[in-house]
Parts: sequence; C-alpha cells; structure tokens
Amino acid sequence: MSPEPTAALARFVATARPGELPARVRHETRRALLNWLGCAIGASRHETVERMIAALAPFAGPPQATVLGRRERLDILHAALVNGTSSHTFDFDDTHLKTIIHPTGPVASALLALAEHAPVDGESFIHAFALGTEVECRIGNAVYPSHYDVGWHITGTTGVFGAAAGAGRLLGLNERQLAWALGIAATQASGLREMFGSMCKPLHVGVAARNGLVAALLAREDFTSAPQAIEGKRGFANVLATERDFSRITEGLGETWELDANSYKPFACGVVVHPAIDGCLQLRAAHRLAPESIEAIDLLVHPLVLELTGKKAPRTGLEGKFSVYHSCAVAIVDGAAGQAQYSDARVADATVAALRDRVRAEASGGVAEDAAEVRIRLGDGRVVECRVEHALGSRDCPMSDRDLETKFRGLAGAVLDPPAVDALVAACWSLDERADAGALARLTVPNEGGARAAA
Amino acid sequence: MSPEPTAALARFVATARPGELPARVRHETRRALLNWLGCAIGASRHETVERMIAALAPFAGPPQATVLGRRERLDILHAALVNGTSSHTFDFDDTHLKTIIHPTGPVASALLALAEHAPVDGESFIHAFALGTEVECRIGNAVYPSHYDVGWHITGTTGVFGAAAGAGRLLGLNERQLAWALGIAATQASGLREMFGSMCKPLHVGVAARNGLVAALLAREDFTSAPQAIEGKRGFANVLATERDFSRITEGLGETWELDANSYKPFACGVVVHPAIDGCLQLRAAHRLAPESIEAIDLLVHPLVLELTGKKAPRTGLEGKFSVYHSCAVAIVDGAAGQAQYSDARVADATVAALRDRVRAEASGGVAEDAAEVRIRLGDGRVVECRVEHALGSRDCPMSDRDLETKFRGLAGAVLDPPAVDALVAACWSLDERADAGALARLTVPNEGGARAAA
Repeated sequence: MSPEPTAALARFVATARPGELPARVRHETRRALLNWLGCAIGASRHETVERMIAALAPFAGPPQATVLGRRERLDILHAALVNGTSSHTFDFDDTHLKTIIHPTGPVASALLALAEHAPVDGESFIHAFALGTEVECRIGNAVYPSHYDVGWHITGTTGVFGAAAGAGRLLGLNERQLAWALGIAATQASGLREMFGSMCKPLHVGVAARNGLVAALLAREDFTSAPQAIEGKRGFANVLATERDFSRITEGLGETWELDANSYKPFACGVVVHPAIDGCLQLRAAHRLAPESIEAIDLLVHPLVLELTGKKAPRTGLEGKFSVYHSCAVAIVDGAAGQAQYSDARVADATVAALRDRVRAEASGGVAEDAAEVRIRLGDGRVVECRVEHALGSRDCPMSDRDLETKFRGLAGAVLDPPAVDALVAACWSLDERADAGALARLTVPNEGGARAAA
Repeated sequence: MSPEPTAALARFVATARPGELPARVRHETRRALLNWLGCAIGASRHETVERMIAALAPFAGPPQATVLGRRERLDILHAALVNGTSSHTFDFDDTHLKTIIHPTGPVASALLALAEHAPVDGESFIHAFALGTEVECRIGNAVYPSHYDVGWHITGTTGVFGAAAGAGRLLGLNERQLAWALGIAATQASGLREMFGSMCKPLHVGVAARNGLVAALLAREDFTSAPQAIEGKRGFANVLATERDFSRITEGLGETWELDANSYKPFACGVVVHPAIDGCLQLRAAHRLAPESIEAIDLLVHPLVLELTGKKAPRTGLEGKFSVYHSCAVAIVDGAAGQAQYSDARVADATVAALRDRVRAEASGGVAEDAAEVRIRLGDGRVVECRVEHALGSRDCPMSDRDLETKFRGLAGAVLDPPAVDALVAACWSLDERADAGALARLTVPNEGGARAAA
C-alpha cells in the first residue's frame, strides 16, 4: 500500500534538505522567480491591483512587506494577496504543462512576503519554493483533469497547498504541524472557472497565497485540522474531483521535480497564437522588415487559432489578445508581442491597423498546435517564408535565460528605471548566494518619482 | 422562466426596505444575535481562539473592531475571522433546520465588525442581517442536500454569500456591485466536512465571515466578477453540488423568511441527547431531586442516542458530550447542561460520576428523535416519571426568549460580570432602537481585571 499522501507530503517538506535539490531544478526556480517578478511588477499599476489596494489597505496591518513594483508596504498577508493577484493579472506567468497550474504565483507571493518579515537566506528560500511548487503540482497531478473539468481553477485550489507547504517550511514547522497546515489549506481551497474573464481570475492566485500563508501561521500555533485532509472520505481530492490517483502524489517524491515541466510564455496572449508571432519575429529579424514594405502576410495555422483568436478588427487591447491579425501585425511593427503590444493605443495605432488588414490566416488540420507557417510578400515582389516547428516557449523550444531576461525587461521596464531592472535581474540569478532573500522584493520598489508608469 | 438567481439576489439586497421586514422576523434576528453573542463570548478563551489570535495578531491592522469577550481589538477583517470562529467553537450556535446551516455566525461576525468601523443604526443593522441570512439560507436550500452529501460544510460555503450580501448592504453597494460581491463570495466558497472534530470546523465560520466582508469591500471598488456566479456552467451550484433547484433561491423572495426555520440548542451537546436531558431537568425541578436521593435513572430513547452518545465512562469534557449517561447525571446534579457541564472537571466529579453509573438507557424504535421517557427511582421507594414529546429547542418546542436569556447568561457569565451580562441582554432586545449597532460589540469587553475566566 502506498503511503498516505497528506502525511507523506508533510514528512517530505519537513525533512527535505537543500542539498538534495538538483542544480537543474535550482536554476529553474530562479527562472520561475524572474518571470514571476516581471509579471507582478508589470501589472502593478493595473486597475485590478489599484482597486484591490483601495478596497483593503484601510484594514491592513504593519508595513511588513513590499507590494511589488510599488511604494506601499502592507502586512505580509495582504502583500501576499496583492502580489499573487498582480502576478496573474496579465495571464503572462508560468505554466506547469501537465496540469495547466500556474505554479509560481501562489507559492512565491506567500514566501517572498514572509521572507521580508522573517529574513531567510537565498538558498533556503529557493528550497522552500521548490518544495512548495512540488506539493502544489503533485496534488494537481493527482486530481487533473477531472478536477479542472468540474470547474475548478486549479491554480487557486492547489496553489493554497503550495503556499502552505513552502511557508510552513520557512517557518520551521514540524511534520505534525505541516500536516495541519496542509489540512487548513485544503479546507480553504477555492476558485471557480466561471470567473475567467473577470478580476477574480487573478484574485484566485492572491487568495491562494494569503490562505496558504495563514494556514502555515495557524499550524505553527498548533491550530489543528484533519489528518487525512487530501485523501480522506470528505477531504480535498474526493470532494473536489471525480477521479483521483494518489500515487501521483507519493511516487518518486524527492526524486523527480515538477518544475522540470514548467514553461513560460514569451508573448502576452494565448499560447495558440505564439507560433505565428514567433514566425513573424523571426522573419522581421532575418530580413529587417519594415511594415510599409509589406504587401501581405499569409499564415497557415492550427484550427484552434482562428477559433479562439479570429477577431479581425479588435477595438481594445484585451480584444487584441484574441486577434491573430493584431498579434502578427504588432509583432512586425514593434518587434515584440509583450504586454505593451496589447494596449488600447497599440491596437488603435494607424500603422498597426493598416498592416493588420493585410494579414490573412488559413487553418489546417495538418499544422500542429505549436507550429505555424508564415509567408510574407513584400512590395518589391520578394517573398520570405518561415516554418515554425515548435514555437518559442513550447515544451520542445523552451525560452532561454536570455529570452526570459528580455521578457522581464519589457515588463519591469514599464515601471522601473533601467538600473533598477538590471539590479533585479542580477539579484534573481544570484539568489542562492544572497544572505537575505527578502531584499529581492525591496529591489522592485520604484524610487521617488522614478516610477515610469506612475509619471 | 424564473429570474437568474445571482441577479435576483443582488436586486433583492440592494432594494429591500427595512419596513418590509415582518415584526416576527425582526424579533427572530434579535434572538439569533443574542444566542450568537453568548456562544462567541463563552468560547472567547478557548484554545482555538487563543491559538488563532497568537498566530495572526502580529499581522492585523488598526484596532477597528472588538474581539467579542476580550480586550483585544483587531482590524475588521481579523475581528470577523476570530468572532466567527469563536461563535462556532462550542457547536452551540443556531441551526437553520432545512439545511443544517448555522446561519448567524458568518453573517453577524462580518456585520458587527463592519458596524464598529462604519457606524450604523440598529434597525439598518437588523435588516442587513436578515438579508444576509436570507441569501445564505436560500442558496443553501437550492443545493441541499447534495452539496452537503458531497462533503461540503454548508455553513462555510453558503455563509460567505450571507456575509457578502449583508456587508454589501451596509456598505450601500448598488445592484451591479452586489452581484460582483456575490461572485467574489462564490469563488471563495470553501470548507470540508473532513475537518469535523478539528479546530478547522469553527474556522470555516470565521473564514466565511472574513471572505464575505472582503468580497463586499472589493465590490465597492468595482472589483469585477462573473455575472452568473451562482448559476453559471462553472459557477457555485454546478461545481459544488450534484443537484440543484434554483427556484428555491428566487421563489417568494422578500415574502418568506428563512429565519422562521431557525432553531437554538438549549444544551451544549448533540441534539439527540436533548430529550433525555429535558426530561431529567423537568423531574428535578418538579420534585426538587438531590443526587443522593436517586437510586436509578431509566431512559427510553431513540436508537440514535445510544449509537452516537453511548459512552458509559467518559474521561474528558468532550467525551462527556458523547455520553447520554454523563449528560443526564450532570443535569440532575447541576440543574443545567450548558458548556460548563462539559468540562473535564465536571466529568471527573465524584458525585456526577457516581450518579452516572446509576443511569441506564434503553433504545426503542417507537420513540421519536425529539422524544424520550425518563423514570427515576428514589431511595425512599418513590418513582417519578416524565414523558418528553418534543424536546426543548426542537421545531415543535422552540426555546422561549427567557430560555435564550438563561442560555446566554450561562455562556456570557463565564466571562463577564453580572451587570455586564444584564446590559448585553437589554441591548440585544432593544437593538432596533439603538443609534449605534456596533456598541453591542463593545459591551462584550470585560473590564480591567473583571474577566472571570481570565482570572
């Protein structure tokens, strides 16, 4: 008989040692954190975040932790809530490919806030983060896909476990307390897919971060919960999923790492459009294409592209994310498809709009989901073409460290001055060696009057 | 076609007028609040509450609201969390008989904390409380019993809606914002039955209160959620229940009131034992029975009594709650079966233990669940008997206002001095006429050194 999952996870988190974390996984944690920080900083002035802070700051506690990318400081619970929310606001954070969990948001938001209050060195921080995401994704593996199909936003429901486990590790909980923390997390698991398209989608990430942190803090004071919170008859997996496989939680625990299945989005829109954007950017770079030199752009794409992003004349930035036409046009004009390319202004831009009308897309069942063909006819009669086999960011073509840096600079650069952005990049890559992990958060604070978007 | 439930509830809460609340329901709100306050004050020094405050107070905000029965003040979100938790700690709060929701805890805990921060008159407070419990119980009606059978602690999952609705009303949200508040509530709905028997059971009530309050505060700042949060394909009712009847939400809205189905526990143990206790107390009062005069107590009870509370030799206060023998013995000795009768000390008491051994119980399928027969043989040869048709607190024999006062005095008297208890009782009964509903909370604060249990 396999061990009981709740107890097994508690033991794992309590007893794992930092030295057991493979260098490969250690590096992936730094990549995940860099990507997450960029998403949170980039969205730090979005109205989702502004409204949340306006609503809740009057009730917040001591200024213990940084709101990423902003000058406000909040208690660690509210900081975790706000930072988790901002990091998912652009839908630009990482994805655990097996479960479509966005693993970093709930865990890192809880841990970084805690690290500002109870200082911890970088190595311990990275280890706790890896343990938290491992717990989160393994619980996800056990209940996916039935749990998601029922209607649960799996990042919220499993994220709370990850935050509780990681925070519990940083707080030094013993095995029994960690089991309680997982139980207190389980009984707060929430987040409905019905909310997709509203501000509640990113809220789920913040709520998971805060609730997981609360779970660990309560457990530290011996606040009790049920011992079989995950596998019990009325526990998480039986109540929130129609099928479940607990061996996915316990098998290979401590030997395999779910962060190996993590991926990052290079472009600030749904992944189906990524191959076409990738092709456009490759052609632009190879041939130094200028928009006015282009007569037509012809795309051959997977059928889902037109189904999900077939909007020919988007009117807002958000609608632009659902337009393969805008995405390819703006990629040619700007040489990028980051969050800045999906503003209302870029969608309304005359040059972009004119090129958009010259993009044509054809669907073919013969094209894989992560592939596309792009053919550009120039005014001078030349034709340049590109066949993308695996789009950047897909399983077979992960973003390089440099790609991630570029993405980070695009996001953080909208809020911070270039030297601050450089300092953050360097701090992320060297996080293991830093004595105080929480200092990372304070590097995201724009200096007085220096916040670009605030100006 | 019936109206959409989320929109219908939002409209109802936004537009209802206090004058529409029948006097009968208005009075029931006062009874519910008195009972709830007693439970919260009585449990205010329980380790569940102590551990929660120790864990979370370092992160709490300004001292905006009272922790009931204590001298600490916390921000309104943490006050709602702690007070909701304490009010359900003794499992002694009210019950909506159709759904076994404990309706007052989530709603009153959110509203009273809010009323301390944003003062409101008693009539408006009572009205908002009635609206909140109405929303909560109607959503419960729509998904009960399948929702409970799946494994959800229905007080937590529906309580968050009630808290959001009531708080939204006090905050003056418009219809659109109230729909958002219900959506933000829906997507935080949580609480697993697996937790029964641990500190997480009362935690669910506190979490529902705090989350509902957060939902209303976010909605006030136009933080958006899905418009069909309750009835949508991936919404609350479809994801958290296997069967649902939305007409139970919308039919008769504003005409019938679910507080009419509310009930209160006279004794601090499971309801199955209540008929036997009732009979013992009646005989004790009628015949001025002293324990030493009693040779034997014979009970004829419903089979569930022995199944659930057949423990012959309980060792702790908690075990005493699962012993019909202790319950009847202590009722004869003390003339009561309140929380004080389920302490470790009362269970270990020599007189109680000696009488307990002279209690015999026989089960009969012919005895109804709310009935019992008690036969006491005295040392002088006399036999006195009593047949309880409907136990005190059952649907057919509700607790009177005086019964509720007695219960309240027993609970609050463990913490507050008699004059403070008297003042609270008077304030509850006259809440409609009071200019500041939040003052009720401050009346529960023990004066310096005057806290009995703290001494």
